[in-house]
Amino acid sequence: MSENPKPSAGKFDADNIHRLAARVYYEDTDFSGLVYHARYLNFFERGRTDSLRCLGIFHHEIATHDEPTAFAVRRMNIEFDLAARIDDALVVETIYRPSKGARLMMDQRMLRGDETIARVSVQAICIDLTGRVKRAPKWMTKLWLPKVITPA
Amino acid sequence: MSENPKPSAGKFDADNIHRLAARVYYEDTDFSGLVYHARYLNFFERGRTDSLRCLGIFHHEIATHDEPTAFAVRRMNIEFDLAARIDDALVVETIYRPSKGARLMMDQRMLRGDETIARVSVQAICIDLTGRVKRAPKWMTKLWLPKVITPA
Amino acid sequence: MSENPKPSAGKFDADNIHRLAARVYYEDTDFSGLVYHARYLNFFERGRTDSLRCLGIFHHEIATHDEPTAFAVRRMNIEFDLAARIDDALVVETIYRPSKGARLMMDQRMLRGDETIARVSVQAICIDLTGRVKRAPKWMTKLWLPKVITPA
Amino acid sequence: MSENPKPSAGKFDADNIHRLAARVYYEDTDFSGLVYHARYLNFFERGRTDSLRCLGIFHHEIATHDEPTAFAVRRMNIEFDLAARIDDALVVETIYRPSKGARLMMDQRMLRGDETIARVSVQAICIDLTGRVKRAPKWMTKLWLPKVITPA
Repeated sequence: MSENPKPSAGKFDADNIHRLAARVYYEDTDFSGLVYHARYLNFFERGRTDSLRCLGIFHHEIATHDEPTAFAVRRMNIEFDLAARIDDALVVETIYRPSKGARLMMDQRMLRGDETIARVSVQAICIDLTGRVKRAPKWMTKLWLPKVITPA
Repeated sequence: MSENPKPSAGKFDADNIHRLAARVYYEDTDFSGLVYHARYLNFFERGRTDSLRCLGIFHHEIATHDEPTAFAVRRMNIEFDLAARIDDALVVETIYRPSKGARLMMDQRMLRGDETIARVSVQAICIDLTGRVKRAPKWMTKLWLPKVITPA
Repeated sequence: MSENPKPSAGKFDADNIHRLAARVYYEDTDFSGLVYHARYLNFFERGRTDSLRCLGIFHHEIATHDEPTAFAVRRMNIEFDLAARIDDALVVETIYRPSKGARLMMDQRMLRGDETIARVSVQAICIDLTGRVKRAPKWMTKLWLPKVITPA
Repeated sequence: MSENPKPSAGKFDADNIHRLAARVYYEDTDFSGLVYHARYLNFFERGRTDSLRCLGIFHHEIATHDEPTAFAVRRMNIEFDLAARIDDALVVETIYRPSKGARLMMDQRMLRGDETIARVSVQAICIDLTGRVKRAPKWMTKLWLPKVITPA
């Protein structure tokens, strides 16, 4: 029998930008024939989650860790530049930005080949399991610090 | 037999704010136990669509009209203030803002009782069926102009 | 100021069938112009959840009850008869069927006026919070027993 | 700069079973902590779409072909055997079954390692762009016939 295939995994490239590929399926489109606007956020979330996974930070593990931690999105500014369509092969780029305290700042971009489909600035925060805001645990900030890119 | 029930419909109140009620279901939550962040955009979209429906503007009709028109979201700034939970009864408020040319500007708020759950500023644009940006048809702007609230 | 609007709520009619109205929004459609097939399951789940709510059974309460209980879907047979479209006003009918032990059997139908859009037979089971199958608590079966309709 | 990553693509293995890998993300889970039942259908649809893509059948192309064709799901029988969880790496297996006229019959299975998570039998039909049922075009049946596995 054949070996089990693996889901597409992103990685941090040499430029410290994390890239994850994704395909547009039926479920992502709406009756306009294009991708439903809220679905772009799903693709961006997959990029953030996959980038954290690359650093060794797993949602289900940090929730049951000594210092239980989860992330919540606090603010998003999104530009919808072009429309993605069914069957499109997309790349989600995730850039870690300088962050303090409870915050985790990221800039993300969705590309189809050379075209920019959408861009988002995300402010996430660390919370404990009761939903209270808390500083990012030190072991976590140590993991993402080497990937931070200061805006030009 | 009993008369057919009707889906919840919003309306413009005397203050020119459109209000639509919505319920949080299983499908809206994620494994954090709270509403998945991208789902707030679905609730906001229902509010915008319902407000246009109240003015006599139906997505499926304007697409097949003499001057075929659709709306696309061009930009969104979102604040996630509090987390909504399963079974919550929410109200989506939609406020029309002064808009020019192809643009339709709206501010929206999601409430649970007196609490603000999330806020969004939306810039939508009118497009034709090939995706090209076009001015909002006059018959349409006439319909929404009486509802526009200039920010204080 | 105006009173807060309420989300559409279903009810059990005199024939013991639960009926919940729902509207098709952008999010429910796909690029075929029709409702995405998996979304019908969301509408059906809203019907089941609302019918339980009408009986006083709330998902978030039974999860933290003395005898913590949740429902999981174990089997579904679905017929997709006609396609629903954007802006359609639908009614979801839910019928409780004779059930034993851990099982909760339901038949559901989605209607648009007099037309049947889709039909589903659902076998749900009661589980505890570790995912183990358990008998439905007696206080719960007492609540739904009066609504059970034996198939003709 | 690094080469663009590609989304995970499935393939037909030597046993004529199509296998596509997929990852469970936040968007797929619900407040039970597990995957929301309707989301399994999305994963199965990705498997069917990817298997057709492997044969050279693309949804957006066949819709604008000389003989415009689309697929609609007509019937599904689903067994939910085990629950999938966030971060799970899944494999969707798709098997083509003997089909006649307008029908396309498939059996699908979702696996996590050696465990069966869910199974579905799908009856899809070919429709034209007005939604009318039509025979599958010959050029299409020729493409999938070599992959058909007759049930034992």
